[in-house]
Amino acid sequence: MSTPTLAELQLTRDVTIRDVQVVDVRFPTSLFRIGSDAVNTDPDYSAAYITLVTDTEEQGYGLTFTLGRGTEVCVLAIQFLAGFVRGRKLSAIVSDFGVFVRELVRDTQFRWLGPEKGVVHLAAAALINAVWDLYARVAGKPVWQLLAEMPSEHLVRLMDFSYITDALTPAEAYEILQAGQVGLAERLAELKRTGVPAYTTSPGWIGLRDDEVRTLCTQAAAQGFRHVKMKVGGAHEEDMRRAALIRSTLPPYMRLMMDANQRWDVGEAIERTRALSVFDPWWMEEPTSPDDILGHAAIRRETGVRIATGEHCQNRVIFKQLLQAGATDVVQIDSCRLAGVNENVTVLLLAAKFGVPVCAHAGGVGLCEYVQHLAAFDYLRVACTFENRVTEFVDHLHEHFTDPVEMVNGHYRLPIAPGYSAQMWDASVAEFQFPHGRAWADHESV
Amino acid sequence: MSTPTLAELQLTRDVTIRDVQVVDVRFPTSLFRIGSDAVNTDPDYSAAYITLVTDTEEQGYGLTFTLGRGTEVCVLAIQFLAGFVRGRKLSAIVSDFGVFVRELVRDTQFRWLGPEKGVVHLAAAALINAVWDLYARVAGKPVWQLLAEMPSEHLVRLMDFSYITDALTPAEAYEILQAGQVGLAERLAELKRTGVPAYTTSPGWIGLRDDEVRTLCTQAAAQGFRHVKMKVGGAHEEDMRRAALIRSTLPPYMRLMMDANQRWDVGEAIERTRALSVFDPWWMEEPTSPDDILGHAAIRRETGVRIATGEHCQNRVIFKQLLQAGATDVVQIDSCRLAGVNENVTVLLLAAKFGVPVCAHAGGVGLCEYVQHLAAFDYLRVACTFENRVTEFVDHLHEHFTDPVEMVNGHYRLPIAPGYSAQMWDASVAEFQFPHGRAWADHESV
Repeated sequence: MSTPTLAELQLTRDVTIRDVQVVDVRFPTSLFRIGSDAVNTDPDYSAAYITLVTDTEEQGYGLTFTLGRGTEVCVLAIQFLAGFVRGRKLSAIVSDFGVFVRELVRDTQFRWLGPEKGVVHLAAAALINAVWDLYARVAGKPVWQLLAEMPSEHLVRLMDFSYITDALTPAEAYEILQAGQVGLAERLAELKRTGVPAYTTSPGWIGLRDDEVRTLCTQAAAQGFRHVKMKVGGAHEEDMRRAALIRSTLPPYMRLMMDANQRWDVGEAIERTRALSVFDPWWMEEPTSPDDILGHAAIRRETGVRIATGEHCQNRVIFKQLLQAGATDVVQIDSCRLAGVNENVTVLLLAAKFGVPVCAHAGGVGLCEYVQHLAAFDYLRVACTFENRVTEFVDHLHEHFTDPVEMVNGHYRLPIAPGYSAQMWDASVAEFQFPHGRAWADHESV
Repeated sequence: MSTPTLAELQLTRDVTIRDVQVVDVRFPTSLFRIGSDAVNTDPDYSAAYITLVTDTEEQGYGLTFTLGRGTEVCVLAIQFLAGFVRGRKLSAIVSDFGVFVRELVRDTQFRWLGPEKGVVHLAAAALINAVWDLYARVAGKPVWQLLAEMPSEHLVRLMDFSYITDALTPAEAYEILQAGQVGLAERLAELKRTGVPAYTTSPGWIGLRDDEVRTLCTQAAAQGFRHVKMKVGGAHEEDMRRAALIRSTLPPYMRLMMDANQRWDVGEAIERTRALSVFDPWWMEEPTSPDDILGHAAIRRETGVRIATGEHCQNRVIFKQLLQAGATDVVQIDSCRLAGVNENVTVLLLAAKFGVPVCAHAGGVGLCEYVQHLAAFDYLRVACTFENRVTEFVDHLHEHFTDPVEMVNGHYRLPIAPGYSAQMWDASVAEFQFPHGRAWADHESV
């Protein structure tokens, strides 16, 4: 295949990446019990945050999400991977984007630290997300639009099919994407009207008081949400009591999901899920280890409850097997744990091949900003429906972004600014930079 | 269970860990084409190397193995985890060793970077291995002996059973270990006489010339090895040609194993393994992604060739599934990718439960020194047989260790020095410290 022209890449000009700056940014959310669940009891929502400096005024911004301690390890891994973009032209990267991704994840020495999992994959995600932000800015479009307007053959070239061709071939992906051209204009019009359907986890944190739970449930309904997720995996009686409280507070038309955050072994997960099934959960999320494909399959088979997993799924190979084994009813992609847009698009296609809905994981910091683009693209070109598809939403830390998500009637409003929406305000980066930002100087004991 | 006494812990005294020193040590092996295979084309065998400084003259030494670039990322992760041992008494750690391991892998913020995989798990391995070295030194025994003489209930307390109780319960592990007390004295006498049976990969590297291959095959036979492993996954014709060369050079009684180092997708792995099966490989190793449990099962089912995998298996949850799915005939534990001695012992027990032999991965730097202890313990207390069990051996870099492996007639001679055998000479650490050691100053262009 010949090298695409700038016009074919949706670019009117080219830029060269001169430098990669990486900052450790941490928000002391643990002080406010935000984000507490059965496993993650004290997260400080954080990011390894990248700025791609170019030879023009245009810059690209990207991040990978973390929970505080260890962000410095991601920063160091990114500093190594930065060598793969420094000095390169944007067009040279995006014209063979799948090849670029393979370079990042297959450095013959660095690969040993994964391969394609954990720290090195989180680092690759941050860098790939930053390149997408830059790409979309130079193209003058939000990422969802850049993707949606891409010819199917270009989309196929984004992906790394290695280790998944027994489940999805490039030709099959192409077919799915071509089918997604049909009715595209109508779906786009609909999407502009209503946005991406979302659910909220805000009333569901384990650390909340009962009156807070009631207030947040009522608020969620008033805000137009039709789905609420609660955390489980605490003491069994307490899970049951909170589930009863939330279920009875929510209007009957609203769906309740449950999230155990990997708290249980397989046997216990089966027992606890069966017991909690009296509250009619729309799904049970992460009932056990995210690595346990066969375990998820067993829990699904034994309980009859819909199973959801994915925010800790390390790469496309695990998602492939979850689908092959019939282990999950809901594919929860994470925009920063998979290697950026490219591997997320790959998993959207895998899920479509198996007819399983994708409901992206979000929350933390920056994840909501990212996944709205992926969900919009999934609707426009891959799944082509929102049936059984809702994207997570959690309402905090959006104020630190220059182009924050906007929620209207329980939907993400389609973003219109060019880029991938995860640029932070300079003032926020300065204030929350770890450990020398003002926010941390004020909490030295943390 | 009450806290064990020092005597019950096989200790006559206690020490306090005062400091944790970590060094990035890299050997420029890529300059000599050592270790070349289809995926790892230019490894610089390296280690994040730990010294535990105590309040006595006794120190503990541990490492995790890497391929060069990225070792600094492991070093930084270890520096974080060091906080879990600094200032603690040895007895406080080892008297509830399983709890200590859980602390390391479940820090509520750091865990997000795994969980239990990749960089953070390699870092945990280095630290846990160093604690074992210190433990065995203070106990005055090599690690294999410390383990072999441990009561079954103490061994059970070393392990983290979370996420594996659907395959192996503490009670089942206890039963297996108790059964391993029967005939222990006879096996120990045998082990002292013959050592741990090994195989060699030295003649099998892809980068070797034909005359080198022939010489090394002949040497292997003369040295008493009965098993040789070759690397495959290059061009198909070249794989076939080299396999024919090696098979025809080796005496007929010697077994030939093949290692594809994850080079293939599932479909290609099936085709290539079928073609190579004419050379009667005793196993085909890592035919595809190490994350692909179902893929390994399919390759095994479709080819009828014995499948081996594990050196890249991130944790006990993946090994559990490989066994549950009947995906592998050989469990290849890695002493540094699993979280040190504790998780390796856990996987030995899992393999025993399923009746699948363990043939440890070694080579690199320090891995041979480590796995001889694990294989000896497996023989003495878990598997209780060497049938179909051989441990990898590669002959380089041993000269940098104060207590290097000794090979006699294709067997690892049972180590007798107290500790876990991975202390390096101070002079080696200084010379190969990256990037300021003399070895690297001499090769600045590398």
